[in-house]
Amino acid sequence: MIKAGVIGATGYTGEELVEVLLNNPEVEITSLSALVDKELPFSDLYPRFGKKISLVCKNLNIDEVASNSDIVFLALPHTVSMKIAPEFLKAGKKVIDLSADYRLPADTYQVWYGGEHTDTENLQKAVYGLPEINREKIKDADLVANPGCYPTSVILGLLPLVKDISKAGLEVIVDSKSGATGAGRKASIPLSFGEVDENFKAYKANEHQHMPEMEHVLAGAAGGDVRVNFTPHLLPIRRGILSTIYIQHKGLPEAEKIYKMYGSVYKNEPFIRLRPSGVLPEVQDVAGTNFCDIGITVAGGLVVIVSVIDNLLKGASGQAVQNMNIMYGLDEGLGLI
Amino acid sequence: MIKAGVIGATGYTGEELVEVLLNNPEVEITSLSALVDKELPFSDLYPRFGKKISLVCKNLNIDEVASNSDIVFLALPHTVSMKIAPEFLKAGKKVIDLSADYRLPADTYQVWYGGEHTDTENLQKAVYGLPEINREKIKDADLVANPGCYPTSVILGLLPLVKDISKAGLEVIVDSKSGATGAGRKASIPLSFGEVDENFKAYKANEHQHMPEMEHVLAGAAGGDVRVNFTPHLLPIRRGILSTIYIQHKGLPEAEKIYKMYGSVYKNEPFIRLRPSGVLPEVQDVAGTNFCDIGITVAGGLVVIVSVIDNLLKGASGQAVQNMNIMYGLDEGLGLI
Amino acid sequence: MIKAGVIGATGYTGEELVEVLLNNPEVEITSLSALVDKELPFSDLYPRFGKKISLVCKNLNIDEVASNSDIVFLALPHTVSMKIAPEFLKAGKKVIDLSADYRLPADTYQVWYGGEHTDTENLQKAVYGLPEINREKIKDADLVANPGCYPTSVILGLLPLVKDISKAGLEVIVDSKSGATGAGRKASIPLSFGEVDENFKAYKANEHQHMPEMEHVLAGAAGGDVRVNFTPHLLPIRRGILSTIYIQHKGLPEAEKIYKMYGSVYKNEPFIRLRPSGVLPEVQDVAGTNFCDIGITVAGGLVVIVSVIDNLLKGASGQAVQNMNIMYGLDEGLGLI
Amino acid sequence: MIKAGVIGATGYTGEELVEVLLNNPEVEITSLSALVDKELPFSDLYPRFGKKISLVCKNLNIDEVASNSDIVFLALPHTVSMKIAPEFLKAGKKVIDLSADYRLPADTYQVWYGGEHTDTENLQKAVYGLPEINREKIKDADLVANPGCYPTSVILGLLPLVKDISKAGLEVIVDSKSGATGAGRKASIPLSFGEVDENFKAYKANEHQHMPEMEHVLAGAAGGDVRVNFTPHLLPIRRGILSTIYIQHKGLPEAEKIYKMYGSVYKNEPFIRLRPSGVLPEVQDVAGTNFCDIGITVAGGLVVIVSVIDNLLKGASGQAVQNMNIMYGLDEGLGLI
Repeated sequence: MIKAGVIGATGYTGEELVEVLLNNPEVEITSLSALVDKELPFSDLYPRFGKKISLVCKNLNIDEVASNSDIVFLALPHTVSMKIAPEFLKAGKKVIDLSADYRLPADTYQVWYGGEHTDTENLQKAVYGLPEINREKIKDADLVANPGCYPTSVILGLLPLVKDISKAGLEVIVDSKSGATGAGRKASIPLSFGEVDENFKAYKANEHQHMPEMEHVLAGAAGGDVRVNFTPHLLPIRRGILSTIYIQHKGLPEAEKIYKMYGSVYKNEPFIRLRPSGVLPEVQDVAGTNFCDIGITVAGGLVVIVSVIDNLLKGASGQAVQNMNIMYGLDEGLGLI
Repeated sequence: MIKAGVIGATGYTGEELVEVLLNNPEVEITSLSALVDKELPFSDLYPRFGKKISLVCKNLNIDEVASNSDIVFLALPHTVSMKIAPEFLKAGKKVIDLSADYRLPADTYQVWYGGEHTDTENLQKAVYGLPEINREKIKDADLVANPGCYPTSVILGLLPLVKDISKAGLEVIVDSKSGATGAGRKASIPLSFGEVDENFKAYKANEHQHMPEMEHVLAGAAGGDVRVNFTPHLLPIRRGILSTIYIQHKGLPEAEKIYKMYGSVYKNEPFIRLRPSGVLPEVQDVAGTNFCDIGITVAGGLVVIVSVIDNLLKGASGQAVQNMNIMYGLDEGLGLI
Repeated sequence: MIKAGVIGATGYTGEELVEVLLNNPEVEITSLSALVDKELPFSDLYPRFGKKISLVCKNLNIDEVASNSDIVFLALPHTVSMKIAPEFLKAGKKVIDLSADYRLPADTYQVWYGGEHTDTENLQKAVYGLPEINREKIKDADLVANPGCYPTSVILGLLPLVKDISKAGLEVIVDSKSGATGAGRKASIPLSFGEVDENFKAYKANEHQHMPEMEHVLAGAAGGDVRVNFTPHLLPIRRGILSTIYIQHKGLPEAEKIYKMYGSVYKNEPFIRLRPSGVLPEVQDVAGTNFCDIGITVAGGLVVIVSVIDNLLKGASGQAVQNMNIMYGLDEGLGLI
Repeated sequence: MIKAGVIGATGYTGEELVEVLLNNPEVEITSLSALVDKELPFSDLYPRFGKKISLVCKNLNIDEVASNSDIVFLALPHTVSMKIAPEFLKAGKKVIDLSADYRLPADTYQVWYGGEHTDTENLQKAVYGLPEINREKIKDADLVANPGCYPTSVILGLLPLVKDISKAGLEVIVDSKSGATGAGRKASIPLSFGEVDENFKAYKANEHQHMPEMEHVLAGAAGGDVRVNFTPHLLPIRRGILSTIYIQHKGLPEAEKIYKMYGSVYKNEPFIRLRPSGVLPEVQDVAGTNFCDIGITVAGGLVVIVSVIDNLLKGASGQAVQNMNIMYGLDEGLGLI
């Protein structure tokens, strides 16, 4: 039985971690921590957990959490994680960090997240937790940097083609649309129902902090530069990301060859589902699941790839537990299918 | 040309006031005030008003606003209005207050709004701005207390029957459902998209502050006590209120007689639309309009009345302008149909 | 391993049955049937089932389905079930019927469902599948009539109090609100997105076919008549029912006593969760779960009970599998928590 | 007073035409026609029009409609319009057709709309009703082909830059997202609430019938070929289109120059609103209005243009009435602002 602590349990990804870990027969949740005014049973805060978990959600006490955990999940804002992760690592615990703190090289991090990285030592050891790229490294990792939600959808959508894209020097245009839980649980007028419902908008066009994460990871996979233009949009739905990815066909393999490459690369992946050529997946195909569904259509000189995930599952908490399963040698889909 | 100032212009009702007043050919909006960090053109704050209004939204300067207004609309939180209204009344301006500050007797106000009433002098002169009850008094009013959104839907749903209800000593059960703009534009987790979307809940069952307003106004119309049990619910829609009203049939007139009473009382009302017997109105029938639509069905020993309004129009800003039209002897529907 | 067939697999409740049965480690789904133009893998019809089930969805062949099933779930329209259930019963199979065909006495059925009952023999043996009332009978049943969604929420909300209500001769007023999946998967203008989104409406006030089901079952539990007035409403959400139930307090036990009665009756129920006195549950507390959450508030001479369920789970497919677990002596919550 | 008939009044665009024409003080609606089972007052079909219009919605009688109209609006499916328009033109009436029947050359029409064009005579005289391009021609037109919703948003988003794009031989990638009313009022499972709500999907990637319309009109404006790749998506909102348009910056003017070009081209346009450089408009800025709002950001070697409209107004019925105003020499914004 793996003893797991969830830190930052009151956010959307924290809540989802609890949900997913409760489904995993090899895990016992041993602590729930968050910044709370009053320490209350988690099921008082979120009644949907009534009769499912009886733990009290406490303010973080690192020693206490370390003493009863084998692994901790950090569902914290960036810059906070890198202050806390080292303590748990020092105590010999495994850490899966859902923030951006261990995903990028220190210099890139500083540019995009607005501050110096204060734990470069562990940053060097951290493994980027995308099983479809790093499964072997994840097995032995003590610190996993769980990927961002947008990057998960985009990287998986491009992975089989990324070497060809890089060689051909093609630019990628990504038009992503995310549900509102992607922004976290926050008191904020722009995230209020009256502003999001019946509305739709682009934001941070070509300047979102997930763009360098995509480029960095894709470049690693390609063995060469990959230029991604990325414009995210806010959907009036709770959960789900759909990324529409555009690449000029010229310079890439024939359509049929592309389909085959995807089929071959993802053949044994438990959480990737390819659509037949020309069929595109929808958000409802993956909402509430850990799957990434991918469809490809080639027409009019353009390769159009649509990749969908649930931002809280494959885009965050589901993938975190998939990583945990790998770290502990368990069936990768335990509690996730 | 009536010169009008809108105070509290950045909230949902303030924004809607601007919209409605712009449609009124007899009105010139002369000032927009609100608590703002920076004084910006209103259309910078709300781009939907681009090319429609060029005023800057300023922090409130009572003297300045008074100097260029004939009438001011106060779209302010309760307790704030009663500090500001007296200044404008002293300056000889007409005031329509959309808060609860001038709707209730001082003692009832204190019980439900948690503080002493500090302007009892004007409170006594205020006219409750429901044209279907007080049209004549509104004509001569200097201070109109614009009704609450829930009370508007409930009072209009009951008005033709309220004397009979009171005489028969029957209790009324009201189950109301409101869109999320009813709670105002606020940074608040419970009002965030992630909490309201795909959700539905009751709140303040039998203890909402609009309940005494209903009872007070209905008692006035009935010439006797009327007991209302009121449970509001939060709908995952932007705008609209639907109130389902239940009364035991025993002790009331026959079904046909009831329909006739409604037809007779509302015959000349420009903003009341009755459905044929047994047909119930829907939110979409009134969203974006100033109408109150009412349907009645009598079955199984129960009178069921459904009353729908747009909470921002007939429930707030539309009704406020209807009142203004009456105060200035204009066609009551000017700019509203 | 229980071999289960799902008939009517392409509707919302059929799809949900597949989901829930896949989670149950003691079940193997052996067939999926529905009226289909073309027999295709179920995961082609509903890609969310990709990599989860490989069965083809076929047009119903009773012999074939009977030959490879221990139990069949009928997720069919009323009047269709009573033509098919007898065949499976004759073949010695267990049947859980999610339609209304076996829930009511034949005479009541005829009044409300517009036709003679053609299988009165099995009707007499059918057990109404509400575990909180009929657990013992369900254990030995061959034919379970799975309750309606609205009745489940209302009956569970009233059960502990129903004898007192009946004795005191009180009427119950039920104002229910349901998500759109409650109406089934249908090509219909009134169910189209453009008509349901941002809308809300009452329908069939005091004449919905679920009303006699509530009265019949509650009368059985009370040992005396119970009069229910029932008005359903359509919510712009996918799943969830919230019923607000009103009863005059006069004639019933004191508030505290009522809370105790609920606590005592539901103490050991795995899928009922009571809120503390005065706290009311929300749809999001139960969406995606098999729980029924209940809150009670007593104020102003009225008992207000709020009962919430997921209409597709506790209101249909979840409860069906709960019944199956009981019929086979399994842990009642297997695959459901 | 212009006498106007609306044909196809029961669809979403027909209903919206009625709404907009009622706001126009120079218009009298003289007939409403549609395929109806029973000829009923329009306000019985759509109660939101109660007390606003008393006309009966009748099955189309061309002679009768022609006899009492100066102009007719055809809100009909494609292929139907081209059978009806000639009759009205022959009778000397002006026609605004909201279908696709008169927007494209006959050969292109045949390729994309699956049938021979049966009214090529009038097709040659038809004027494409985008005032920002064809204002002068619209003034004298008898037959106006009202633009498609997607093309309106895309063409207006590209117009000031289209000559440069064409000269530079650049391809345009358009990722559009539309609310569900864009598909019309239809009984259809894919358009039902249960399938659209909380979902999002791409459809007809690079094969939507609006793509040739964009290319045809843009080529006309550019005086040379323009290649548009177009992928539409379905948003879970009622109304609104947001098009995100991507073009490689290389080969185009400097960013500042681009902003200036837009400012200059659209300076006097009553229904175009430009955002400051780098600011992008949202759907809620234009929902319920006839405006097209446009924002431009240049970054990372890419020009990103976001263009938003209300698909039922600037994308259909609002633009139709704007065209009518032009045809009759009225203020272009009459009844529209």
